[in-house]
Amino acid sequence: MDKEYDVVIIGGGPAGLTAGLYTARTRLNSLLIEKGMMGGRIAEAGWVDNYPGFPDGINGYDLAQLMYRQATKYELKTLYASVTAIDIQDRQKVVKTTEGDFIAKAVIITGGAERQKLGVPGEKEFTGKGVSYCSTCDALFFQGQPVAVVGGGNVAISEALHLTKFAARVTVIHRRDQLRATPILQEKAFAETKIGFLWHTVVEAIEGQGSVERLKLRQLKTGERSTLSVAGVFVSIGLRPDTDYLKSTVPLDDSGYIITNEKMETEVAGIFAAGDIRHNSIRQVIAASGDGATAAIHAKIFITG
Amino acid sequence: MDKEYDVVIIGGGPAGLTAGLYTARTRLNSLLIEKGMMGGRIAEAGWVDNYPGFPDGINGYDLAQLMYRQATKYELKTLYASVTAIDIQDRQKVVKTTEGDFIAKAVIITGGAERQKLGVPGEKEFTGKGVSYCSTCDALFFQGQPVAVVGGGNVAISEALHLTKFAARVTVIHRRDQLRATPILQEKAFAETKIGFLWHTVVEAIEGQGSVERLKLRQLKTGERSTLSVAGVFVSIGLRPDTDYLKSTVPLDDSGYIITNEKMETEVAGIFAAGDIRHNSIRQVIAASGDGATAAIHAKIFITG
Repeated sequence: MDKEYDVVIIGGGPAGLTAGLYTARTRLNSLLIEKGMMGGRIAEAGWVDNYPGFPDGINGYDLAQLMYRQATKYELKTLYASVTAIDIQDRQKVVKTTEGDFIAKAVIITGGAERQKLGVPGEKEFTGKGVSYCSTCDALFFQGQPVAVVGGGNVAISEALHLTKFAARVTVIHRRDQLRATPILQEKAFAETKIGFLWHTVVEAIEGQGSVERLKLRQLKTGERSTLSVAGVFVSIGLRPDTDYLKSTVPLDDSGYIITNEKMETEVAGIFAAGDIRHNSIRQVIAASGDGATAAIHAKIFITG
Repeated sequence: MDKEYDVVIIGGGPAGLTAGLYTARTRLNSLLIEKGMMGGRIAEAGWVDNYPGFPDGINGYDLAQLMYRQATKYELKTLYASVTAIDIQDRQKVVKTTEGDFIAKAVIITGGAERQKLGVPGEKEFTGKGVSYCSTCDALFFQGQPVAVVGGGNVAISEALHLTKFAARVTVIHRRDQLRATPILQEKAFAETKIGFLWHTVVEAIEGQGSVERLKLRQLKTGERSTLSVAGVFVSIGLRPDTDYLKSTVPLDDSGYIITNEKMETEVAGIFAAGDIRHNSIRQVIAASGDGATAAIHAKIFITG
């Protein structure tokens, strides 16, 4: 595997795949590094109705596959590895990974954002045994059983709606008294008889024998504690960018997202960020892809002048 | 037709259609105003190979149709009219058009940029059949063939350099005897053996059978006429944003493009710009669409807080 590239792209979601499509098409020698699954979170997203060009919607996994096939039609190299650091040596960047170091003239960081954990007893122990962060991946395991979704945003409510096709009952547990999800999703959720809501409520512990059997809950207003019997709990309380390794490299906001301008440039010449990992991203596939293209074009300008 | 809206979107290209898809899906009462053809320049773009999700490419007209169908699936209203002014009255914006005035809480301007045309015989006829206004889009179609670039600015010379990776030979046709492009680009172009220059020269006609085969040229100093055999001609004599009516409304750059930040906000609260009409746009469908979604989400935040 070559060690020197024009561009190294970190992350293989829509932003990274689009950046790779653009850099490869423009004949920049490009390496895309992904630590998990190509397609990123979109591959687990279920149905996507708002990616322009697909008026009847498209399965997120299928869209990811199409993007991957398109990006790798050209001379984009790909590698599965975790990036541990970016060292800047004059105009060169050294991208350190679990599979060795790579040298690049420009780096496009598109690492996305990961699901936030609840941080309660039982969560780690039962991950994959009833605790899930992806309804698209795991809904089938809960056929005819009661499940809970923790959260109130678009993703949480989409997951709750998706789960009604499998589970016997879906309880949405939300710490506030109203949802953040868009009105259209809220209407659908409120109209769905299988979905119930517990407001002002948090999960304090996840319990069971070998797999999830019940949640220990607390009502925030009254302080009252209760138990909810479920076979599964889907955690959907937000996202965290994987940028700890970048703290001393590029400016981050308070939540760890990378700050860019509208050219996707960070403050460090030759380092770009695109997609959900950047500050003020709207976390939509179309915007992440647009960011990726923008970063690629400006990386090209940076390299070739 | 209603006169009051949450959002008025100016322009029905990818940026406007995506903005409309997003505002309508989020249940903002939205009007999209287009003066020409829905789909904008993409509808005339010929084949599009670099819009993610279509690994085998898609006809620009078809992509425009898909985007239009998707945007209008929801409650987006559309109107054919020309916008003549935006008046700001406190938090309200009055959008003045050839079909009357409309009041909006937020305005998203996506009017795009128009290619300056050569205005010669054959140009219109062969657009998408050898006449191109975007080497990033179309360079791959000219593998191993002779092409010409008309223009002498940064974009023209970047396009010529880009084309050397594909075409057999690239002839730069420029009406002056020196380039406007930056020295670094000029040096590269002069060092590139595949690039030739015709100075003081203009295209008088584009000819062929079904697709471009030759250019009829005239040398301005001598008046001499000649013929150049090419399979493609890239016209890069500039773009022009349609923003004359906005001069006293929002800050523009020297070329008339609208200045935004990475949230697509202009300096005027509630006025957003997206796509090719904004300063630093990379003028690609995917980025324009991403901009449109970003503007829509931030318009929503502006309106609902």
